[in-house]
Amino acid sequence: MQTGRQTWRFPSRPRITGSASIVGAKEGDGPLGSSFDAIERDAYFGEPSFEKAERVMFERAQRLAVKHSNCSMNDISYVIAGDLLAQNISASFSARTHSRPHLGVFSACATIMEAFALAALLVDSQNGERVLVGASSHNSTAERIFRYPTEYGGQKPQTAHCTATAAGAAVIAAQGEGPAITEATVGRVIDLGISNPWEMGAAMAPAAVDTLRAHLQDTGRTTLDYDWIATGDLGRVGHPLARQMLLEQGIDPGHQFTDCGILLYDAQQPEVFSGGSGPGCCTVVTLSYLLKKIQEGKNKRIMVIATGALLSPLTAQQGDTIPCIAHAVTFEG
Amino acid sequence: MQTGRQTWRFPSRPRITGSASIVGAKEGDGPLGSSFDAIERDAYFGEPSFEKAERVMFERAQRLAVKHSNCSMNDISYVIAGDLLAQNISASFSARTHSRPHLGVFSACATIMEAFALAALLVDSQNGERVLVGASSHNSTAERIFRYPTEYGGQKPQTAHCTATAAGAAVIAAQGEGPAITEATVGRVIDLGISNPWEMGAAMAPAAVDTLRAHLQDTGRTTLDYDWIATGDLGRVGHPLARQMLLEQGIDPGHQFTDCGILLYDAQQPEVFSGGSGPGCCTVVTLSYLLKKIQEGKNKRIMVIATGALLSPLTAQQGDTIPCIAHAVTFEG
Repeated sequence: MQTGRQTWRFPSRPRITGSASIVGAKEGDGPLGSSFDAIERDAYFGEPSFEKAERVMFERAQRLAVKHSNCSMNDISYVIAGDLLAQNISASFSARTHSRPHLGVFSACATIMEAFALAALLVDSQNGERVLVGASSHNSTAERIFRYPTEYGGQKPQTAHCTATAAGAAVIAAQGEGPAITEATVGRVIDLGISNPWEMGAAMAPAAVDTLRAHLQDTGRTTLDYDWIATGDLGRVGHPLARQMLLEQGIDPGHQFTDCGILLYDAQQPEVFSGGSGPGCCTVVTLSYLLKKIQEGKNKRIMVIATGALLSPLTAQQGDTIPCIAHAVTFEG
Repeated sequence: MQTGRQTWRFPSRPRITGSASIVGAKEGDGPLGSSFDAIERDAYFGEPSFEKAERVMFERAQRLAVKHSNCSMNDISYVIAGDLLAQNISASFSARTHSRPHLGVFSACATIMEAFALAALLVDSQNGERVLVGASSHNSTAERIFRYPTEYGGQKPQTAHCTATAAGAAVIAAQGEGPAITEATVGRVIDLGISNPWEMGAAMAPAAVDTLRAHLQDTGRTTLDYDWIATGDLGRVGHPLARQMLLEQGIDPGHQFTDCGILLYDAQQPEVFSGGSGPGCCTVVTLSYLLKKIQEGKNKRIMVIATGALLSPLTAQQGDTIPCIAHAVTFEG
C-alpha cells in the first residue's frame, strides 16, 4: 500500500458519506456563506463563554454530519478530532456528548487533514466502519489565547490572519455514496526561522511546498492531474510565496492552485487581513465548497494541503521560531 | 481485523525494536532509577527555560531510541508524538530536528498509548516500516501551566499527583527483535462530574475501568490472561478506586493489577503525593520497566491502560468538570 515515503494510498476508497459546516457571522457574510449548513450570528452560541461556544458549535457540526450520513452516533466506530485551544479542549469536551472511542490529534490548522488521513487508514485497514472526523476554531477563543484580549483593540498588520469561527465534521465510511479519500501525504515539520506570529502565511508556505513536492514525487503525478490544489490558509501573503517557491523548484502549480484562507472571506470584508485561518477554516471550505464540486460532478480530483503553524503563545514569548507542517489529502469523485 | 467495537488487532505483531527513557533527578532517585537510560540532575537540561529543557530531553530520548533500534533517523517512516504543554510544543518543536513525517497526537497522560496504537496500525497495514513514537512531560513546565508558579510554594493535598520529568521514545517496526504490540483498545471520553484538579486519580479511574472492560469484552479474555495490567497514573487514590469499581462490575483485577504512577516513585520520597503523572510517567515506566520483563522472558503478556485527564487551566478556571480517557495496548513476548 505504501506508494512512497510520505504518502498512504487507500485502495478501498473510503467515502465521505456526510458532512456539516457551522460558521459564525463573518464567515456567513463571506462569498461561501450560502454553502454552509448553519450561520450563527451570536458569537456566544448562547453560552456563557467563547470556549463553551466553540464546543457547542463543534458538537452541532458533529451531530449534523452524522445525520447527513444517515446514521446515528452509535454507528460511529471512532471519532478523530482536534482544535487550536490549549490541551485540545474543544475536541475533548465535545467528545463527552457522544461516548464514542476518541483519538485526539493536533496539527494546528492542518488538524483536519491529519484526521482525514487517519480515518481513511482506519476504514481502509478494516479497523473501523464509520469514522467521524472534525476540527474547529473560534475567532474570540483564538484571539485571547494567541493575540490580545479583543477588548484591547490591538492593531494588526495586513500580513495577519483572521481566525475563522467555524466547525466542520464528516463521516468517512467503508460503504456509501460520496467523495472518496484516495491518498494522504503526511507532512514534515519545517522551520525556516520566522519568529513573527503576524507572518504565519510566510512561515507556513515552505511546509505546503514540501508536502506538495513529496506528494507529486510519491504518486508520480503532476499538478495538472488535479482539478484543484488548495492550500489550507496561507492567505494573500503566503499563497503567492508558495507559488513562487514551487516555480523555483520546477513545479508549476497552475491556475487551479488556490487557498482556503483566501476563499473564505471577501478581501473587502472588515479585518480579514490576509485571509482566514484556524483549524475550522480549511475544514469548512473543504467540506462545504471544494467537495461539493466533486459531489456535483464538476470535478474529479481535488487535493487539499492544510497548513499548520505549530507555535504557542509561550514559544512566541520565549522568542522561538515557528515550526510549520502541512498534510495533504486527495479527494476523488 | 476488527475484534470488537473499540479494539484493533495487529496480526503481523509489530515489534518494539528499540526504546529509550530519560528522566529527571526525582525519577532517578525512585525505585526504578536504575532502569532508565539517563538521569539528568539539572532540571534545565542546560537550557534557558524549562520548556526548552523538556524539548531537549524529548529529542535525546528520540535519538537514543533510534540508536537502540540500530537504525538512523532517515530510516524512520513516521513520527507520532505528543506532550502535555499547550499546543503540543515539546512534540512539535522536537520534530524540527528529525525532519521525518510527523503526526501530533493528544490524549494528555494517555498520549503514548494512542501513539503506540496508531504506530502499530501503520506498520500492520504496511503503510510504515519503522515508526518512532514518543511522549514527554516536565515537572516544572507542568507546574507553571497547570498549578502554580513553583516559586509560590502552594501547598497541595495528598490526592495531588507529581508530574514526572520524563521522556520516552520507541521504534515500532515490521521486522526485528523485541516485544510485540498485538492489540490496542481506544478509549471513550468519560466525565463523571469531578471538577477538582487535585483529584485526577479519582476522575480518571472510571475511564480506565471502561477501557479495561471493553478490552476484555472485545478479546474474550479475563484479567488472568495478563501477567501485568498497569494503569497509567491513577496513583494511590485512583488505583484502589478503579479496583473497587472493577470488582463491582464482576471483574477481579487480581494481584497483577498495578499502576505506573505508583511504581515510579517511593511513597517516602518528598512531595510525590499520590504518585507520578504526566505523559512521560506511563511512557518511561512501560518502556524501561514493564517491557523489560517481556524482554527478559519473565512475562508473556502485559497490558498498559494509560489514563489521561483532558482538562486545561482554562476549563478548570471556568468551573468545568474533567473529561478523562484511557487507551490500552497489549504487549507480548
